[in-house]
Amino acid sequence: MNEFDLINQYFDWGTGIGDDCALIDVDAHQQLVTTVDTLIEGVHFPVDTSPADIAYKALAVNLSDLAAMGAMPNYFTLALTLPNIDEQWLEDFSSSLKALATKYNIKLIGGDTTKGTLSITINATGTIQGVALMRSGAKVGDGVFVSNVIGDAALAWKQIQSQKLPSRSLLTQFNRPEPQVKLGQALLGVASSCIDISDGLEQDLSHILTHSKVGASIDLDALPLSDEVEQYIADTGDWCVALAGGDDYELCFTVPKSQLGTTQSIEKELGVILTKIGVIVESGLEIKGLDKICQSYQHF
Amino acid sequence: MNEFDLINQYFDWGTGIGDDCALIDVDAHQQLVTTVDTLIEGVHFPVDTSPADIAYKALAVNLSDLAAMGAMPNYFTLALTLPNIDEQWLEDFSSSLKALATKYNIKLIGGDTTKGTLSITINATGTIQGVALMRSGAKVGDGVFVSNVIGDAALAWKQIQSQKLPSRSLLTQFNRPEPQVKLGQALLGVASSCIDISDGLEQDLSHILTHSKVGASIDLDALPLSDEVEQYIADTGDWCVALAGGDDYELCFTVPKSQLGTTQSIEKELGVILTKIGVIVESGLEIKGLDKICQSYQHF
Repeated sequence: MNEFDLINQYFDWGTGIGDDCALIDVDAHQQLVTTVDTLIEGVHFPVDTSPADIAYKALAVNLSDLAAMGAMPNYFTLALTLPNIDEQWLEDFSSSLKALATKYNIKLIGGDTTKGTLSITINATGTIQGVALMRSGAKVGDGVFVSNVIGDAALAWKQIQSQKLPSRSLLTQFNRPEPQVKLGQALLGVASSCIDISDGLEQDLSHILTHSKVGASIDLDALPLSDEVEQYIADTGDWCVALAGGDDYELCFTVPKSQLGTTQSIEKELGVILTKIGVIVESGLEIKGLDKICQSYQHF
Repeated sequence: MNEFDLINQYFDWGTGIGDDCALIDVDAHQQLVTTVDTLIEGVHFPVDTSPADIAYKALAVNLSDLAAMGAMPNYFTLALTLPNIDEQWLEDFSSSLKALATKYNIKLIGGDTTKGTLSITINATGTIQGVALMRSGAKVGDGVFVSNVIGDAALAWKQIQSQKLPSRSLLTQFNRPEPQVKLGQALLGVASSCIDISDGLEQDLSHILTHSKVGASIDLDALPLSDEVEQYIADTGDWCVALAGGDDYELCFTVPKSQLGTTQSIEKELGVILTKIGVIVESGLEIKGLDKICQSYQHF
């Protein structure tokens, strides 16, 4: 049983679980969205990760979920489980958390600290100006896009696991992914569906397809890759770092033909790279040029 | 360093941390309050606790925080860390969680599941109709009250730790504390300050005194105790189960003289016991009749 089956079977009581964030109607003019993510030492980050990187990532992954719905970050709570009190560790953790929170204008409003295996649960809430981006709006003929490049974080993690030190640029993508908060907000009213790539492109795009009841045809050659990932794939033929590697925190979204011009304007205005990697079709997920199946990130 | 020093030193960035819940101004007519609590196996509940009891307590402690502010429960998120997928465990956990959520009309709107040591983080949000109950409003001359009886949960925990099976009634208080949600709402505009007793009466009352910049004089003989706790104290002289035992989840609150009549009406209307245990004074915490200091629950 994977995480999604588990949630569907035991915790979907008909109250709106299943998107990147949950939607809350506060009043007629405003929607809140809220998201929660837990990072555990040894599972989601290596044991010797610096407290500054841990804090950054714990908040960034939640900001990325808000971005995927087009939300403006508003406030968050922090549940921090620590094996012991290490003042230097806490100082570094808190400074890094505060720096990222300040950058994205999100307020820490509450929390809980407990003793145990190092783990961080952040619950972030944002505000939607308009109609939230959902996984469910993709239509046949829409273009499928991803932001910037994908696969860097997965290649870094692969190298770390085989005792190799990744390049600075790969490590930055792994430890300090930039949540696409501005892009998400810019895509409100433009994209027909959106998700952030946390578990790998194939798996996350599949969520869009399932929720939208459509399929997609993806062109392997169109995937936006860094030089390092491109070289790695040329050497090994291992497309899975780009297709099934998690932790990219880029956005994957679909755009109707009528909005392709606006998408180009957003690209220019925000200075992000937006690449069309395929098209929405009736059913199935075809990846043109791929000759083996990748194993996506499994939560259990 | 205790939990409160830790929060003050590293995470109080001037955005309102420190009460049972954080307050969020949504619009001119409404305040949201949000609270987060983590329960870890072996720390906050014994290793062989039933999934139904774990689920109940994880939500109940958060409902209790909402109660302490006078909030009406609204929605919650669940971050669940599991060592493995056990379908029977999940079935029992989810049924119990749903039953309590239904009873208090609070919706599960999102979550995250991860693999690791069993731990449950719930972030619950409620709505305030009026001005929230805070820790900071107690004034000299106000009466100090607690709801129902205190010490049962602490005595149960003491017995469990020394391999003795507690009575059914003590175990119920320990595993299934009733959050005082209706009482909290009834105290809006009546109590001058309020907190829930999760870490022990002495420590939690001290938070009221610190935030309100006052002291209190408490009468040991006035503490409301069950027959079992009364007998235990008579046998051992150990007042600490009532003064420093956590996990009661009753409310401790202060009431100005002008509201004593209303307090009696609330007692009758809700069928709770509200006992005056002392009075707010200028400074200090005097416990009349106590000849030794109790060690309250320390988070680290």
